[in-house]
Amino acid sequence: MKIIDNNISPSDLPFSEQVRRGELMSKDCPSREILRHVTSRWGVLVLIALSNQTLRFSELRRKIGGVSEKMLAQTLQALEEDGFIDRISYPVVPPHVEYNLTPLGVEVQQQVEGLADWLEDNLHRIMQQRQQRCEK
Amino acid sequence: MKIIDNNISPSDLPFSEQVRRGELMSKDCPSREILRHVTSRWGVLVLIALSNQTLRFSELRRKIGGVSEKMLAQTLQALEEDGFIDRISYPVVPPHVEYNLTPLGVEVQQQVEGLADWLEDNLHRIMQQRQQRCEK
Repeated sequence: MKIIDNNISPSDLPFSEQVRRGELMSKDCPSREILRHVTSRWGVLVLIALSNQTLRFSELRRKIGGVSEKMLAQTLQALEEDGFIDRISYPVVPPHVEYNLTPLGVEVQQQVEGLADWLEDNLHRIMQQRQQRCEK
Repeated sequence: MKIIDNNISPSDLPFSEQVRRGELMSKDCPSREILRHVTSRWGVLVLIALSNQTLRFSELRRKIGGVSEKMLAQTLQALEEDGFIDRISYPVVPPHVEYNLTPLGVEVQQQVEGLADWLEDNLHRIMQQRQQRCEK
């Protein structure tokens, strides 16, 4: 990632330039909103849960401990609008809706998974650090 | 990332087992809290801004467009408690405080940077997708 250090602040760039390449440090760059969706409390977990599989809403809810119906629906909608998730609705009674990652979603999922894997693998080290800092 | 599919729910595991290896899908796993700090609205940007450099509070604030003093302070404190950031305070008047990444912080920063770089590089594709979905 390039950090812009010269005198042109990223938000001075024309909007089209910002869109060609995102600039997360700039407050008006649309990449900020996408980052918020992807790294939202449930966004990370939804992307990971859909890794290599199509799931129904109820299956997603069971897989992701603690998520409410409302928050899961909001998270899925935001990720769908960004083009990371496809919502497939079958015209049957009762309604049957499935979710899976789009090709773009698979790419962002791979990035997020790196972070998630690192956190799971290193949790013991982080907890140790926290303990030591508390004792100081 | 392993997703546990058998009948033992991750939260049934003893706490010590959960800490040995985090389980983000489990609602009571402490990795959830760390993930929230790292992927908080400003957490990602703070970690990236501190990549390879030590910065003062005011420098961080200038670099990260749109962050308030209060939110930056809260974000730094959470990341410091997790052991990702060192806060170095010099006993001078006026106070001089600097922040940099710890070795653990460098590791998590590298994961987060992968995601940030991907988002910046692919923003045009995401915006295109959003446009197309809006027109449907």
